[in-house]
Amino acid sequence: MNAPATLNDHIRDGTAIYEKSFAIIRAEADLSHFTEAEADVAVRMIHASGVVEAAEHFVFGPGVCEAASAALRDGAPILCDAEMVARGVTRARLPADNEVICTLRDPRVPDLARQIGNTRSAAALELWRDRLAGAVVAIGNAPTALFHLLKMIDEGAPKPAAILGMPVGFVGAAESKEELARDPRGVPFAIIRGRMGGSAMTAAALNALARSGI
Amino acid sequence: MNAPATLNDHIRDGTAIYEKSFAIIRAEADLSHFTEAEADVAVRMIHASGVVEAAEHFVFGPGVCEAASAALRDGAPILCDAEMVARGVTRARLPADNEVICTLRDPRVPDLARQIGNTRSAAALELWRDRLAGAVVAIGNAPTALFHLLKMIDEGAPKPAAILGMPVGFVGAAESKEELARDPRGVPFAIIRGRMGGSAMTAAALNALARSGI
Repeated sequence: MNAPATLNDHIRDGTAIYEKSFAIIRAEADLSHFTEAEADVAVRMIHASGVVEAAEHFVFGPGVCEAASAALRDGAPILCDAEMVARGVTRARLPADNEVICTLRDPRVPDLARQIGNTRSAAALELWRDRLAGAVVAIGNAPTALFHLLKMIDEGAPKPAAILGMPVGFVGAAESKEELARDPRGVPFAIIRGRMGGSAMTAAALNALARSGI
Repeated sequence: MNAPATLNDHIRDGTAIYEKSFAIIRAEADLSHFTEAEADVAVRMIHASGVVEAAEHFVFGPGVCEAASAALRDGAPILCDAEMVARGVTRARLPADNEVICTLRDPRVPDLARQIGNTRSAAALELWRDRLAGAVVAIGNAPTALFHLLKMIDEGAPKPAAILGMPVGFVGAAESKEELARDPRGVPFAIIRGRMGGSAMTAAALNALARSGI
């Protein structure tokens, strides 16, 4: 199992590949400051990024794994800022055939963006308002979307059950995540500090929470 | 523009965010060993990962940017191993309304996987055979898919115009990419050495190649 993989001699069994990958991650990553539930999520996020050291930047607010898993079991919708996040959610693993919603391509979004003077990613969240209460929010792309979500909550929008705040990038990403961690507005949250994040890590976190038995 | 972003004071203009992001990346990343076309692709791959240092692991085989861009302009299909890669391709930027194909969810794939004793990601490539000649291949998820592609080519399958070999992970990912770089079988290629890669970086590379004026 530990010989280097070659063209003619590599593991071809999907389950075995997952198991070996997770074993490597658990051997290499420092997960000691995470709860068991958090570590399960962290392992899948590392798996999606290929970067063991990413774990140093994961912050799980109190109770976020339990809150997100319970909400999913209770049928909460998953609200995603990007199509790639939505596409990365493994539908077969969702505990209650949960809706996975991304409003970015809604035809109303370009006009909304002009009206509020913000990106389309932020404007798309305006269409979440009637689904936001108790939802699991997964922001894996746009810092402007995360900032806008917090602003909506500050202005009285219903609170989601949990926020995965994991936008990637160089302009506003780190700051939007720090703002969520600084004042989570009473909502359980998880972030990746700094620039790292993205749709793959966010979807991996969701998939881990969806399959957890918490 | 250089003050830290806050809830009430952050850039809300998508184009400005892109421009500032790319400027930061070009200031921080060492792109000196890339051609101009390669650097454009590298900047977008870094942007998708949030990791400037990732550029150290990018390898562009001779002429890959030119070959991929020309193939796209000529209407080549884009063959993706994962739905998230396909979803990440910006359709509006494609120069010839190119088809974006992912066969992973084809109902024939589970049986094919059993027949060839490999993952579904690898088996899905069996359904590419009649589209492979001159295509742009983007493997952003599964090392088994990249290994299988090389095996198919070794066994006489038609050659694509370019291969973006960017699977992520801990088991076989690094090795599958090294095998492509070691012997590209006469096909222009790009890889990310080591464990990093994934659907977001792969889609970002495709989007850069699609919009380039090469």
